[in-house]
Amino acid sequence: MNAAPTLEPVLQQARLIALDWGTSNLRASLLGEQGQALATRSAGSGVMAVQDGQFENALQALCGDWLEQQPVPVIASGMIGSRQGWREAPYLQCPATPAQAAAQMLALPLRGGQRMYIVPGLRCTGRDRQHDVMRGEETQCWGADLAAGSCCLLPGTHSKWVWSGHAGAIEHFQTYMTGELFAVLKQHSILGRLMEAGPPQPQAFADGAQLGLSQYANLLHLLFSARTAGLLGGREPQSLADYLSGLLIGAEVGSMRAQAPAAIASVSLIGEGALNERYALVLSLAGIACQTAVPDATTRGQWRLAQAAHLVGAE
Amino acid sequence: MNAAPTLEPVLQQARLIALDWGTSNLRASLLGEQGQALATRSAGSGVMAVQDGQFENALQALCGDWLEQQPVPVIASGMIGSRQGWREAPYLQCPATPAQAAAQMLALPLRGGQRMYIVPGLRCTGRDRQHDVMRGEETQCWGADLAAGSCCLLPGTHSKWVWSGHAGAIEHFQTYMTGELFAVLKQHSILGRLMEAGPPQPQAFADGAQLGLSQYANLLHLLFSARTAGLLGGREPQSLADYLSGLLIGAEVGSMRAQAPAAIASVSLIGEGALNERYALVLSLAGIACQTAVPDATTRGQWRLAQAAHLVGAE
Repeated sequence: MNAAPTLEPVLQQARLIALDWGTSNLRASLLGEQGQALATRSAGSGVMAVQDGQFENALQALCGDWLEQQPVPVIASGMIGSRQGWREAPYLQCPATPAQAAAQMLALPLRGGQRMYIVPGLRCTGRDRQHDVMRGEETQCWGADLAAGSCCLLPGTHSKWVWSGHAGAIEHFQTYMTGELFAVLKQHSILGRLMEAGPPQPQAFADGAQLGLSQYANLLHLLFSARTAGLLGGREPQSLADYLSGLLIGAEVGSMRAQAPAAIASVSLIGEGALNERYALVLSLAGIACQTAVPDATTRGQWRLAQAAHLVGAE
Repeated sequence: MNAAPTLEPVLQQARLIALDWGTSNLRASLLGEQGQALATRSAGSGVMAVQDGQFENALQALCGDWLEQQPVPVIASGMIGSRQGWREAPYLQCPATPAQAAAQMLALPLRGGQRMYIVPGLRCTGRDRQHDVMRGEETQCWGADLAAGSCCLLPGTHSKWVWSGHAGAIEHFQTYMTGELFAVLKQHSILGRLMEAGPPQPQAFADGAQLGLSQYANLLHLLFSARTAGLLGGREPQSLADYLSGLLIGAEVGSMRAQAPAAIASVSLIGEGALNERYALVLSLAGIACQTAVPDATTRGQWRLAQAAHLVGAE
């Protein structure tokens, strides 16, 4: 207790603590002088899991030793900057560049004397004159370093389609409630009652996706076919969840293709895991070329914003 | 106890007991020799509320005195004929006439010696090659006695659009999951979190409906606007449920109008209450003429089927 703890070599190299703080999880990365990850940790202390605004305690519980031993700046992106988060970082209107976002980061003092910088979310107004918002995905897009004019797709509970402009600007984007709709229909609607768990059913998924791609404009009717396909169409109860997933992702991609065929001639997929594989398959069924973006887009984007704000050295 | 109960005059006139036995409720009507309702009763003993197949006990609890004192035939339509009901009455394939449905009714003996006749549901195959099904609504359509070539709309948890042919045939139909989707999104999704109860908000409903009518082909994105309209668009929490309801009904009518503009030039609305008023308003916003069908379509349809099956006298 009376000898100061020895700084581990890895901690000495740290230049930034980067937090991906979403609704369900908190992921922390200790980044070195090139922005590379020296160490990563995660916990279930997402925004919805933290009680009574105890966000600083949640951060200390996960990263207290890092903060104490190497007082580098902290950058945070995601729902932590929402009204339900630690402090609201007002939305930046699109088109928005990384430089603008870096200049509008919200700085909060931490107990140890460091500062934490919360990345603002983005808002835009669509062709349908409706508002749209994102928090966290903008940082991933900037990390993927997309070419001007390109389109990227971020699957998730609320998937996002994003278009890039010059100087890294995000021009506009559209959110789809596909993932959440799948979850609530499976858990709480009549469609879930016929479903049974089982191994993946790629053919059922592909069949649903083809139907969604063609019938996206009649979705409220199409959903009912996830019931009748089980009642009358010979689909096994174990295949119905994959069939519904295909229907919904197919309808999302079909809607987007109908709106903006030229703008989605080629799509960069950001993210990883099984959900991304589902989107990649549906894009291929739709005849849309698809590339997988860098896997560590979040920390790359956070590093880029920290550079733009002069929290870390430039390249 | 030792004197036989005097038959009430109203019971002496009874010719048929007609049951509208759905998922949530059981409604019973005692019909006279012209098919007119002599008495009606209802209970919460719908198919989902009856445990362990105790359907006959549920029927006796509601109508035991009728069955004992005037042993007339019983006819039942609705989910009571489904796999989860008393006994499955196999679906009849469209196009289907009242005469065909009457011939395919499933007869069950009751304890007192009468027979109960369960009306079969209908199935059809849509232009998208998907199956569709109904149970109960076919009887309502036959009760509304629609002209050949006309379209009728039955709002509900799963709304139905139905087209009539010659000899009372139901040619085909389409189901929309609009009502159930509204309920699960309100109760279980992020959209419900911003909603607060309050007085009806007709303008919010109309605004949502206009947007749904125009953007029906991008519904998975449109749903998210029920969140951003509250976050950024200045809509009050008390207006968001009506706004979402408008979006969904608007999207349903918009989808149908795009598919079959000529086939829905004029629509007969079957049913009553606030949900029908919502559909009537959206049809008018969509420029679709709309008539309200007879209010007692269910018992009229049951009487018509009972006549066709010679359970009661012809007109």
